[in-house]
Amino acid sequence: MLDPAIRINEARFWRTVERSGAIGPGRPGGLSRLALSDADREMRDQFVGWCRESGYAVTVDRVGNIFARRAGADAALAPVVIGSHLDTQVNGGKYDGVVGVLAGLEALRTLDDHRVRTRRPIEVVSWTNEEGARFTPPMIASGAFAGVYELDWVLGRTDDDGKRFGEELARIGYAGAAPVGGRALDAYFELHIEQGPLLDEQAVDVGIVTKGYAVRGYIVEATGETAHTGPWPMDRRKNALVGAAMLAVAVNDIGWRYHSTGGKATAARLAAWPNKPGILSDWAQLTCDVRHEDPDVADQMAKELLDSIPACARRANVAMKVVDHWVFGNERFDPDCVGLVRAAAARLGVPTLDLASQAGHDAYHVGKVAPMAMIFTPCEGGVTHNNNERAEAGYTTPGVNVLLHAAAARAGVA
Amino acid sequence: MLDPAIRINEARFWRTVERSGAIGPGRPGGLSRLALSDADREMRDQFVGWCRESGYAVTVDRVGNIFARRAGADAALAPVVIGSHLDTQVNGGKYDGVVGVLAGLEALRTLDDHRVRTRRPIEVVSWTNEEGARFTPPMIASGAFAGVYELDWVLGRTDDDGKRFGEELARIGYAGAAPVGGRALDAYFELHIEQGPLLDEQAVDVGIVTKGYAVRGYIVEATGETAHTGPWPMDRRKNALVGAAMLAVAVNDIGWRYHSTGGKATAARLAAWPNKPGILSDWAQLTCDVRHEDPDVADQMAKELLDSIPACARRANVAMKVVDHWVFGNERFDPDCVGLVRAAAARLGVPTLDLASQAGHDAYHVGKVAPMAMIFTPCEGGVTHNNNERAEAGYTTPGVNVLLHAAAARAGVA
Repeated sequence: MLDPAIRINEARFWRTVERSGAIGPGRPGGLSRLALSDADREMRDQFVGWCRESGYAVTVDRVGNIFARRAGADAALAPVVIGSHLDTQVNGGKYDGVVGVLAGLEALRTLDDHRVRTRRPIEVVSWTNEEGARFTPPMIASGAFAGVYELDWVLGRTDDDGKRFGEELARIGYAGAAPVGGRALDAYFELHIEQGPLLDEQAVDVGIVTKGYAVRGYIVEATGETAHTGPWPMDRRKNALVGAAMLAVAVNDIGWRYHSTGGKATAARLAAWPNKPGILSDWAQLTCDVRHEDPDVADQMAKELLDSIPACARRANVAMKVVDHWVFGNERFDPDCVGLVRAAAARLGVPTLDLASQAGHDAYHVGKVAPMAMIFTPCEGGVTHNNNERAEAGYTTPGVNVLLHAAAARAGVA
Repeated sequence: MLDPAIRINEARFWRTVERSGAIGPGRPGGLSRLALSDADREMRDQFVGWCRESGYAVTVDRVGNIFARRAGADAALAPVVIGSHLDTQVNGGKYDGVVGVLAGLEALRTLDDHRVRTRRPIEVVSWTNEEGARFTPPMIASGAFAGVYELDWVLGRTDDDGKRFGEELARIGYAGAAPVGGRALDAYFELHIEQGPLLDEQAVDVGIVTKGYAVRGYIVEATGETAHTGPWPMDRRKNALVGAAMLAVAVNDIGWRYHSTGGKATAARLAAWPNKPGILSDWAQLTCDVRHEDPDVADQMAKELLDSIPACARRANVAMKVVDHWVFGNERFDPDCVGLVRAAAARLGVPTLDLASQAGHDAYHVGKVAPMAMIFTPCEGGVTHNNNERAEAGYTTPGVNVLLHAAAARAGVA
């Protein structure tokens, strides 16, 4: 077991967070560091530089996931892995994802400081394109690692300008040679800002994630007919944009119906074609989801969403159908790994709060192929995916210390 | 007066329409010839080529409007002008706009055939970017000609890819030297497909336009806050996309309330930012309009639209405001010019139907600086802004003959 007196170097840790916060500036105070952009490359280069300075072996896989490995006493053992992501939303903050990767780096550096030799190797990973802000779906590269997505499918995804994931990855120099997944991880730990208000409101510095919110997501397509916005009579119109807008409103209403028990429903993205003045659109697509802590309630919300589609289609006189859907919330948070987090917090005297995760995380995918646990740290008011997202060193460090001690416990001190 | 026995060469006229129908193919049977695209250049080159072959003097102004002038007996007199547009919607047909320009060309060629000398010059014009399918607003270049829009403002408009009108115009070689407007036109005649079903249903080949539908258009902007689509509670959400979607539905409902008296209301374009999975949008914009033959009813529809904005804003918890608006329907169809059309139809024995125009047309702007009249010709079922738009030589030709005789009467036969 790691000496319970050992703590990370908070100043050093926060310097890395602040350095990251200068790469890919967005709106004031925030970042706009989209996956596979020039800013993403600059951040990756910085991260790899730090890892190499410390002597960690860096591997990049074919979807651009970066692994930095601190050797263990027994090189034959599967590693303990710590990580998150370095990309942000287009109006993103400086902490979402970032603190998780840099917490991993700081944990390894702290082990170096104290010349601690672990039995297993420990790796820090930065997953590509977690946000899905440029290439959909989100968490695409951890999904590929877990075998959820095929390599070629991932490389062929295009952004809104038609640029391909694989070409952009090569352009920024991170189309690595390592196979994607297919190797054993002993365990995976991810630290992340809570992206909710509970830790901040209750002034508790560490959240222990015990489950994920049940999420049911849908992409619904509406098809109609183009026609002139002037002479074409209302009763002959098949404006796909109107069908999608009706569904967006219906989805939002579902969220309100379940608001009192913490339910949410979101109309996140509406695309239409031609989507121009003077012409009715013959195609539209709505990306939406419902979320609830209780999977049965989430299923009921999803049923209401699906039931509303025919009504919208009829009212807008268009055809509507679900063309893609996804489910979160059946993730397995490994009791042993969660127990290590809980025990580490207890050893360090850090108060904790058990929480459900309401957002998607790379850990969800990794949990399919390795035992997994997550640690949450506070963010002010729960504000996230916004340039006003805010965290501080003082209330982030306790979580990083818990992460360090939990991961070291799992890796074993030689 | 032109000899009432003179008729256009229908086969020659329709060959030009068919040649145009091969330039800039879109969906099967249709065109996608966006303004200032390569296809637009090819069509312009073809049109200019035809005009020069016939010896008409071609002038291009600084917004790319093309004028081809057949000399009159008195060069000092202001010309009679005939025209429309050669650009199409992204899912456009082969006839909307096109037949009006090529009808003008055919009228001049017919005068050549019969060695008719007119007192006034007659010009054919093709206006740039009538559709607004690439650069907004529609009818931008006839608007500039009429002094509604400033030259620099027009040249600075950008398309959805950020390309500027002025640069694209220069790229295709149609940034002419002639000043925009500022010269006298004696009269303006525009022939256009009806874009409505009445002529087709009643088997009447010529519509005489007596007024424009009253149109009140709005661009409404919603502003909210980005946040995570997961943890952020419904009662704190400010999803601008939802506000715009609510308004789109409200606008469509207004159209239905006035459907029985021929009213229409359209949600044509919804843009949002970031409009991505995982994040609430903090900006959205809806382009919408209401139309009615009776201006008072159109005003009432507009009032209902404006009244619905605060309700949508409140329900979506976003700020919403009108950022642009426009009005059509107070166009002046000149009694003398309309009378010339009516008289020409009578001389030729062509039955006519008086109609209101429900779409916007370049003639609306030109009518601000010159006496103006419009002639409608049938299109099957009123289908337009769609690749299934359809017209035939047989039922288009009577309108072109009426145009020829009306314009010649105005120009005077020397």
